[in-house]
Amino acid sequence: MVTTIDDAAGEASDGRRAGNPYDADCPTRLILDRIGDRWTVLLVGSLGNEKVRFSELRRRVAGISQKMLTQTLRQMERDGLVTRTVYPEVPVRVEYELTEAGLSLRGPLKALEEWSIEHLSGVLEGQKAYDGRETVAAR
Amino acid sequence: MVTTIDDAAGEASDGRRAGNPYDADCPTRLILDRIGDRWTVLLVGSLGNEKVRFSELRRRVAGISQKMLTQTLRQMERDGLVTRTVYPEVPVRVEYELTEAGLSLRGPLKALEEWSIEHLSGVLEGQKAYDGRETVAAR
Repeated sequence: MVTTIDDAAGEASDGRRAGNPYDADCPTRLILDRIGDRWTVLLVGSLGNEKVRFSELRRRVAGISQKMLTQTLRQMERDGLVTRTVYPEVPVRVEYELTEAGLSLRGPLKALEEWSIEHLSGVLEGQKAYDGRETVAAR
Repeated sequence: MVTTIDDAAGEASDGRRAGNPYDADCPTRLILDRIGDRWTVLLVGSLGNEKVRFSELRRRVAGISQKMLTQTLRQMERDGLVTRTVYPEVPVRVEYELTEAGLSLRGPLKALEEWSIEHLSGVLEGQKAYDGRETVAAR
């Protein structure tokens, strides 16, 4: 699935895919840090196929601070996941949109989001059981 | 895809899936933090379908510290992603194995891993271009 998306983007044939996140110090690990970040997951999900204003993103990702939203969007722009368009209006309007690379993350990140919802009660119960066992048996 | 896995595990019909990571303070956000963590991604990938010893996991995820490996495996056990089996041998043998929930994460996390490899050069080039623009134009 991912291969198809990347084939379409022309990246599978450039011969530069030397990354391996199982190697120490491979920069793919830094990319994993970024794309697995909870705010990136929620912003990619919130952007979808649209151009969305900063204030609207802040509404869609409830509870995110202005600072964290600014910081995450800037990082996503730097990593090539979103484009930022400034409209010279008063007050200035700023909109964000997923790039082709950002769009290719939608499926994988949606799967994480869905997993977190589907497994919520299971994880919470597992944690409770684990904590109960841990108080009984020293490890 | 995720739905099918959960249907098989009998979680789709229990009526308790009230989680929404777009809501502030929803515990699904804590689950996202965990499953998107780079070490979780690499450990789920390293475990695959096997029982694997601690020392072997440390070899497979190059550069992970003993402390980080211990901590991440413990967290994964607490969240119900791995089981830990201790064999009373001398020296003691400890093996880890993905649970059904952990196995259901393999596909989604493999997709992140593949994305990080496929997009490595694109992201690095994008970062370089962004940093160049940022030194020219104040924002």
